[in-house]
Amino acid sequence: MRILVQKFGGTSVDGHECMLKVREKVLGGLDNGYKVIVVLSAMHGVTNSLLETAHSWTEQPDRAELDVLVATGEQQSVALFTMLLKEIGIKARSCLGYQLPIRTDPTYGSARILDIDQNAIFDLLKRYDVLVVAGFQGCDCTRRITTLGRGGSDTSAVALAAAVNASVCEIYTDVDGVYTTDPNICSKARKIDTIDYEEMLEMASMGAKVLQIRSVEFAKKYNVPIHVRSTFSNEPGTIVTQEENSMEAALVSGIAYDKDQARITLVGVKDEPGVSARIFEPIAAANIVVDMIVQNPSKDNRTDLTFTVPRGSVRDTLAIIDRIKDEIGAQDIFHDDNVCKISVIGVGMRTHAGIASIAFATLKKENINILMISTSEIKISCLVKEKYTELAIRSLHEAFGLDKEKSPACEQSLA
Amino acid sequence: MRILVQKFGGTSVDGHECMLKVREKVLGGLDNGYKVIVVLSAMHGVTNSLLETAHSWTEQPDRAELDVLVATGEQQSVALFTMLLKEIGIKARSCLGYQLPIRTDPTYGSARILDIDQNAIFDLLKRYDVLVVAGFQGCDCTRRITTLGRGGSDTSAVALAAAVNASVCEIYTDVDGVYTTDPNICSKARKIDTIDYEEMLEMASMGAKVLQIRSVEFAKKYNVPIHVRSTFSNEPGTIVTQEENSMEAALVSGIAYDKDQARITLVGVKDEPGVSARIFEPIAAANIVVDMIVQNPSKDNRTDLTFTVPRGSVRDTLAIIDRIKDEIGAQDIFHDDNVCKISVIGVGMRTHAGIASIAFATLKKENINILMISTSEIKISCLVKEKYTELAIRSLHEAFGLDKEKSPACEQSLA
Repeated sequence: MRILVQKFGGTSVDGHECMLKVREKVLGGLDNGYKVIVVLSAMHGVTNSLLETAHSWTEQPDRAELDVLVATGEQQSVALFTMLLKEIGIKARSCLGYQLPIRTDPTYGSARILDIDQNAIFDLLKRYDVLVVAGFQGCDCTRRITTLGRGGSDTSAVALAAAVNASVCEIYTDVDGVYTTDPNICSKARKIDTIDYEEMLEMASMGAKVLQIRSVEFAKKYNVPIHVRSTFSNEPGTIVTQEENSMEAALVSGIAYDKDQARITLVGVKDEPGVSARIFEPIAAANIVVDMIVQNPSKDNRTDLTFTVPRGSVRDTLAIIDRIKDEIGAQDIFHDDNVCKISVIGVGMRTHAGIASIAFATLKKENINILMISTSEIKISCLVKEKYTELAIRSLHEAFGLDKEKSPACEQSLA
Repeated sequence: MRILVQKFGGTSVDGHECMLKVREKVLGGLDNGYKVIVVLSAMHGVTNSLLETAHSWTEQPDRAELDVLVATGEQQSVALFTMLLKEIGIKARSCLGYQLPIRTDPTYGSARILDIDQNAIFDLLKRYDVLVVAGFQGCDCTRRITTLGRGGSDTSAVALAAAVNASVCEIYTDVDGVYTTDPNICSKARKIDTIDYEEMLEMASMGAKVLQIRSVEFAKKYNVPIHVRSTFSNEPGTIVTQEENSMEAALVSGIAYDKDQARITLVGVKDEPGVSARIFEPIAAANIVVDMIVQNPSKDNRTDLTFTVPRGSVRDTLAIIDRIKDEIGAQDIFHDDNVCKISVIGVGMRTHAGIASIAFATLKKENINILMISTSEIKISCLVKEKYTELAIRSLHEAFGLDKEKSPACEQSLA
């Protein structure tokens, strides 16, 4: 049994006309000899509208009941879409999270999938050609409804693809694939044909919001190939997969950016064991995600500590710092909202040196000052003044030859 | 464990303000020492709007998927209402049909309840003080969602009350009880304190649309007392129960009417065995409900046959008659839409003669011609010209003393 998983997001199921396009995609899968598992999100705007109602009725809606409420969005999508399939004689049925079941932990609102009953799905696929599954939802061990958190339908789709060992998990969306960078900023941005899971993770977490991060982690873990493509065209999109031979991989796959960054500097804090923990523990406890951290070399047993947090968390972070500033001996506290993180991403970095120096040289040539640097095996991130965002992206995009199919400029530089 | 079941219809859960009133009712139940099972309908208009969407998308929506779709209405109600309970610290949770479970047959759209897991509910009631149950829905043996048909939430409530042997099943609505007749027609209509199941069945089927007929049948079968009352007041409403001592019962409990009637007369059909079957079988096969039937005495082996059908079915009925008119030898066919059925209802009729003659005399006194008569143990129905509807109701209401607490006028007449 060859199985294809197809996932359609909110803008792809937004009304009758859109759903007819979705039906075409499903028919295409059937024509190619697949059994099809279709995973649907709620129609555009439905989830938000339900959340708004709940929050206007009660200040802190019960998490478990919120899941019962928002799960209705996907339930409506799958019911309506299955009607459209049955209308033309296709053997199909809708499946809600508890019906398959997709079992999760009981973390309402951001549950994690524990397991999916593979045999139950195979049994259903013997009787039906298409299963229309409500994305984003599962059930805990007491059969209460859980949801997987924003974008959770991607994770549903990948988890189902992993469970049934599907040939591919197609994620349909309103863009036609993953780009080397934001096409709105860089007109030379190019659609990427193939990208490695880890690169995709970095791209996704950097704000290239095509796929939910957790779904990519899931796909990586179970080695499920993802095909990100457009509901509104027949062109192939971007395949997210395991890069088999990283020697032949592009050195750099893309340039991502994240404007939701603010920099906080603590001047002259005591340089003694435990000070960092004293600072970052209460920040973590307040659920504030610290991204980059740089500690300057110590001088007179004092050091400057700079880190970044999401812009919306600046006020809360400063309040926490204020409470501990005497204890840690901070002499001064600065913060700056007008910064942006630019990241150069590529699995090729693992086997090639010199990517960082090209990035730094490129920014220097444009007179862009680098405020902070952090690196990983496959990523170099530089914090710059926000006003340089577009310039930095365009010049890095060109420097690494991302506007061309291969990247000769880059390989030349390294030769 | 003393258990109270409270059911609230669509107009009672129509928005935040309404639901706060519902919460007051639930708190009242808790204050009186009950564990409370709250059964909710979808918010006013939600079910219709979902049905409209489905029917605008596809001509004949799949029945099973339609149930998946409309069940979201109740799901949203219970989630939102449970949030309001938890907000003030009440131990509550929502329960969907499949979670209890309420098991039904797989007749999507009009499923019948097979059984309810009593022990599962008792287990839940040990952990929660209030269970908020989605009305109108259940699940079949394959765990697919079913719905019980229009007004099914009443049936859900009564079935739950029967399953847990609840003290009473309160049905909250936007009227304050069952009336002796339609107060819009007869200003002297009086709220009935207690009414027998069978009387209520006749009242309900006659168009006093306070309770779904099936819920009353269910209540009668399991002897569940129903208290029909208003969400928007604290006054007691009408208790629907088994009349213990019908000798003391009111002779007549109410006057119902049904304008959705049309009369069809077949003149001079052959009076031979099998003719009636030949006429009424194809009508029944077309799902047309025939109500009253009168056959005149035969003359020259021919007879006139008159019967009533709902007005919307007149055209279809006439088309059927047309196909068989030669075979049955009908010499002429008349039909009349401008009729109304007036019914005098009371379990007291079982033990008292003379009710019918008072009814006939009353109509005669007002010069209202009776077109057809049909009677049961507890009901006398007369078909009259529609224009006499109001006059007939008011005069019968007065003749049977329904405007007074007891009915001395009537007993006098019978003395």
